[in-house]
Amino acid sequence: MEQDYEIVLDQGKEKMIERIAILGTGLLGTSVGLALRASGFGGAIVGWNRGAEGARLALEAGAIDAIAADPLQAALESQVVVLAVPIYATLDLMEKLASVLGPEHLVTDVGSTKGTITEAAGRLFNTPERAAFLPGHPMAGKERGGAALGDAELFRGAVWLFTDDASWQRSARGAELVEEWRALVAAMGSKCIDIDPARHDEMVAWVSHLPQFLATALSALLQERVGDAPELKDVGGRALREMTRLGASPYSMWRDIAATNTQAVQAAIFALEQRLQHLRENLKTPALREEFEQANRFRRE
Amino acid sequence: MEQDYEIVLDQGKEKMIERIAILGTGLLGTSVGLALRASGFGGAIVGWNRGAEGARLALEAGAIDAIAADPLQAALESQVVVLAVPIYATLDLMEKLASVLGPEHLVTDVGSTKGTITEAAGRLFNTPERAAFLPGHPMAGKERGGAALGDAELFRGAVWLFTDDASWQRSARGAELVEEWRALVAAMGSKCIDIDPARHDEMVAWVSHLPQFLATALSALLQERVGDAPELKDVGGRALREMTRLGASPYSMWRDIAATNTQAVQAAIFALEQRLQHLRENLKTPALREEFEQANRFRRE
Repeated sequence: MEQDYEIVLDQGKEKMIERIAILGTGLLGTSVGLALRASGFGGAIVGWNRGAEGARLALEAGAIDAIAADPLQAALESQVVVLAVPIYATLDLMEKLASVLGPEHLVTDVGSTKGTITEAAGRLFNTPERAAFLPGHPMAGKERGGAALGDAELFRGAVWLFTDDASWQRSARGAELVEEWRALVAAMGSKCIDIDPARHDEMVAWVSHLPQFLATALSALLQERVGDAPELKDVGGRALREMTRLGASPYSMWRDIAATNTQAVQAAIFALEQRLQHLRENLKTPALREEFEQANRFRRE
Repeated sequence: MEQDYEIVLDQGKEKMIERIAILGTGLLGTSVGLALRASGFGGAIVGWNRGAEGARLALEAGAIDAIAADPLQAALESQVVVLAVPIYATLDLMEKLASVLGPEHLVTDVGSTKGTITEAAGRLFNTPERAAFLPGHPMAGKERGGAALGDAELFRGAVWLFTDDASWQRSARGAELVEEWRALVAAMGSKCIDIDPARHDEMVAWVSHLPQFLATALSALLQERVGDAPELKDVGGRALREMTRLGASPYSMWRDIAATNTQAVQAAIFALEQRLQHLRENLKTPALREEFEQANRFRRE
């Protein structure tokens, strides 16, 4: 993969991306820095983080070359700015960056919902006079966050979704920066897929957000019912560990997801409630067989 | 572990268990045979299975030394009979074995619910004139069954629950066979724990059956909603794979569990429905933080 990427770039024109600013060096930001380095990116990587500890860990891990004191200054000095903070913090930074950056910059993000961010990208960026903004969402993560868990291989084999809008009138340079960034993402081992932002949010509500909120509900319920008997976790074994692993996910990240994809998540949770009720009412009827067979199909295909 | 076990047995009196019959050579039966061999059991192991293919695979894997044509005959010729079939099939075999076996035999099972089986064990076994019956439940398994998945290490580090009843009047020989079987279970690497059968069924409803039925409901729902777009499974990534792995579990096994632990499972599923509703109604309120923090605690302790 690394080899292919270098050949592609060397055959093409000169690289424009010489400096990348990563704003937010938590799990994803740190992993982006590590993956860029591991895949052969030779330019500078500067990092900024709200907390000093996260920035220090990212620097020590080699994910960034230097810690920036000011996110706007770091952005101004870079061709690409990667926003790797929770969604509302991303929207805040987008507002601030829009007025200081010009068409020689590309801003991209890694947020888990894309409707709100893509709307802001159309309103604040992506005109000939402004910076380009490429809304992105790597489908990779861990149940716990933080720079210490940063992983150069996090994006290998993962899907990296983009919700670009064809109607935007980017500068020629912005369009080229987008292409070069997508090549870097591919070099990190991810498969780039373009998708409509509304379709994205609907889809992740089912395959990503529903599993998370379900694991949270199950873990919280079990904590209440059997939390005083930790030996029962051994009884549950691997199955229980897997079904509650995401229970460790931080509220700080999921609050913004719940708030920016509320309707789709509500619909998915409600559908699961109904499905559970159906199963509960049919524990002794032939409908139970149909549920198991339907579930078996999902795992087979 | 193996070493410890041999020392214990060699220091004690002569071994009584020279021949074990495994009735049902699916995943668990085959794994018991393999684990017995791996832990140093030197006696004979004979297997019976309803389908010829499962018996053949168990024989080829070395889990059994011979295939028995008749389960009752195999039981009569053995000191220990391990029932490793679904729960209603276990109850059927218990009825048949009770009248042919005497106090020189021990029958034990590996069923996932223990109320019904323990009641039958008191009614049909465990008198001075009858065979002993030790209701057991190894907390180990895989999402798919079958002899081909048999694993000598399946029980290592697992909990093996027993719902023995102190009121039973076993023969002296039956009591000794129980002790020797428990030593063999320990030698397979499991931790033996005694528990009241009603408490067992209540407990596994929460930590084992609820995760299973939840994974089934989630998998069935996702099959209906996104089953025609298999690429979405990549989008969901590891989290989705884990949350739906148990969706592959077979109806043939879980039907009997649902039918013999109905009330406890219904209560657990209903509690989860309510928890999901609470979460759904609070996606934008501070109660969401409380749910995440409660879930975090379950994973921390």
